[in-house]
Amino acid sequence: MTHEGVVSAAQRFRQAVRAGVHDGLTTGCAQGFVQANLVLLPQRHAHDFLGFCAANAAACPVLAVGQPGDVSLPGLGEDIDLRRDLPGYHVYRGGRFSEARRDVRDLWQDDLVGVAIGCWFSMEDALREAGVRLRHVELGIQGPLFRTNVRARSFGRMQGPLVVSMRPFRLADVATVRSVSARYPRVHGAPIHEGDPAVLGITDLHAPDFGEVLLPLPGEQALYWGCGLTAVCALQTLQIDFITHAPGRMLVTDLLNQSLAETEELP
Amino acid sequence: MTHEGVVSAAQRFRQAVRAGVHDGLTTGCAQGFVQANLVLLPQRHAHDFLGFCAANAAACPVLAVGQPGDVSLPGLGEDIDLRRDLPGYHVYRGGRFSEARRDVRDLWQDDLVGVAIGCWFSMEDALREAGVRLRHVELGIQGPLFRTNVRARSFGRMQGPLVVSMRPFRLADVATVRSVSARYPRVHGAPIHEGDPAVLGITDLHAPDFGEVLLPLPGEQALYWGCGLTAVCALQTLQIDFITHAPGRMLVTDLLNQSLAETEELP
Repeated sequence: MTHEGVVSAAQRFRQAVRAGVHDGLTTGCAQGFVQANLVLLPQRHAHDFLGFCAANAAACPVLAVGQPGDVSLPGLGEDIDLRRDLPGYHVYRGGRFSEARRDVRDLWQDDLVGVAIGCWFSMEDALREAGVRLRHVELGIQGPLFRTNVRARSFGRMQGPLVVSMRPFRLADVATVRSVSARYPRVHGAPIHEGDPAVLGITDLHAPDFGEVLLPLPGEQALYWGCGLTAVCALQTLQIDFITHAPGRMLVTDLLNQSLAETEELP
Repeated sequence: MTHEGVVSAAQRFRQAVRAGVHDGLTTGCAQGFVQANLVLLPQRHAHDFLGFCAANAAACPVLAVGQPGDVSLPGLGEDIDLRRDLPGYHVYRGGRFSEARRDVRDLWQDDLVGVAIGCWFSMEDALREAGVRLRHVELGIQGPLFRTNVRARSFGRMQGPLVVSMRPFRLADVATVRSVSARYPRVHGAPIHEGDPAVLGITDLHAPDFGEVLLPLPGEQALYWGCGLTAVCALQTLQIDFITHAPGRMLVTDLLNQSLAETEELP
């Protein structure tokens, strides 16, 4: 899946991050390459985390798992250093957000396990190629994310709300978005809901729980997808220390977005 | 996803197995309900196993993970007892097949973890509804499975060949099979190969490594899918004790096959 023998745009991007040249959002960076959510958590909680993700696979599709204490993630790219290759990290202590960091080398522990979860960004190329207008991309934002009143499937002590992302599309594009996104099950797949936010217990589109406000215009329909933050919210209930990517500052991998589409290519 | 308040055909089937009334193949049983591969392995190896499955998600899609020592698997159905609700088990010792069992209650250990992996059977309803002829179903067989010369992505010490299933289809049905199966990523999704078996290093279609012989007739095309046995073969390299379902004797769950199709319904 990687361009062997060639330093990919993804590798160059990670090197720039590591060198301190880039510390902004990864939106639009290393186009064509998969960007992933990252969670670094103690090994003794990894089983609960992976069980929860399996039980909520549409929201929390696991792209790769690391070995305990291993700062690399060979399944997703050459020379990845999970401690410093993302432009930003969020550190949680006792389950609560503590601080944002540029680098987490000094927080690394030998029992930490990296888990990469698919991100909706990876279907944007295919949507664009299908002629779909992506208004959130035009605005340079990620879009709004909401905690819903739908409960995720619990696993052990991990439980919480289903978190969703919303993006508005032209009515004429909705059928295309539905069929293209269904081809990308490892980055949340087809929308889980269309239209009325109240069905998900979302009372105010002006007040997203994460991300930025973006309202459907006349002639647009709001589409909703499960979001990897579902796993982060549930992990908080364990009241443990863990680390995630900072919002919009994702792990840029060597995988090509098109490799996540069904048909999956051979290894 | 379950029919609440009603004992489903799946539950009735598991009860019949548990009562010793049924010990044959699960093919055609409890139609409409998801059947899954099962692996029971020691917790200390579960991380490697789940990491391997994530790295080979098309072949080894994890449907559910159990808690260590828990004989139930609540994500997949009411009252499941993983030790006796399958009509047959295969016991491996030191990585080698040791014996077939009807029941593994006396082998249960408090550190065992159950992992359910998606099975191709779950897309058969949708293919049938789309008018596709399923010749292996007419013959009452599972079909042939082959070890290929394609290496699965390794994870830690787990490594091995990609194992594939093959089924022949009428040429006129191939496009339909491709598009319907792509809607079922959690049961192997779209075919990974069509046609010439030599491309996968399969030299003799008359000699499958598992399952039964089934050759494409004139006017048929052979289609190949990644198979959950990929994970079992790789697990053997750890030379540990573990237990799986016996071939064709699957875990019958309370999930409906249609629930695995994109769009996934809300939890």
